[in-house]
Amino acid sequence: MPAQLEIIQPSACCAPLTREPLGQSDAEDLARTMKALGDPARLRLLSLVAASEGSEACVCDLQEPLGLAQPTVSHHLRVLTEAGFLTRSKRGTWAYYALVPGALDRIADVLRG
Amino acid sequence: MPAQLEIIQPSACCAPLTREPLGQSDAEDLARTMKALGDPARLRLLSLVAASEGSEACVCDLQEPLGLAQPTVSHHLRVLTEAGFLTRSKRGTWAYYALVPGALDRIADVLRG
Repeated sequence: MPAQLEIIQPSACCAPLTREPLGQSDAEDLARTMKALGDPARLRLLSLVAASEGSEACVCDLQEPLGLAQPTVSHHLRVLTEAGFLTRSKRGTWAYYALVPGALDRIADVLRG
Repeated sequence: MPAQLEIIQPSACCAPLTREPLGQSDAEDLARTMKALGDPARLRLLSLVAASEGSEACVCDLQEPLGLAQPTVSHHLRVLTEAGFLTRSKRGTWAYYALVPGALDRIADVLRG
């Protein structure tokens, strides 16, 4: 698969923070992305998916480790999906969430000095 | 200056998200740090400081570019300081804010796959 097909545009943007002052529009985009990461349950869900084999996990395996109700887990997974970190696909009974390749690295690149 | 003196412990923690599932305590620490970055004005202030010569800026130069009132700027700078991204020092009339070396890189390391 060509490399460009593996990199899906996440909602973050921007030159590295330390290189040039961030403009208002880029700052708003990046803040939305950071807000999606500003919750312990979402960070744990994202990490559970990311650390799973193939960076993909069944929603059926994401509820028990956090001890949260299913609607709460679904809400957090939706926020992570809308922020461009996860994709959702339905296979049979269950939904599967996969890490969007490059999404976390792009945020890391913006933060790195 | 020895390298270890340049790296101040930021509030973030943790092995990379993609390596192993994040525990609750680490997730809470990291979420607090991410929340500090989840605001466009704070991202712009952090970027203004980080992109300044020597990664340091006078508070007197941080107000005009954002068009925000001084108390608002002060509030955001305090949040960034408490989150471990900036240090504050008073010299003469003005406060100066400096980027904590390594603080952004440590967050980037946690996010990177």
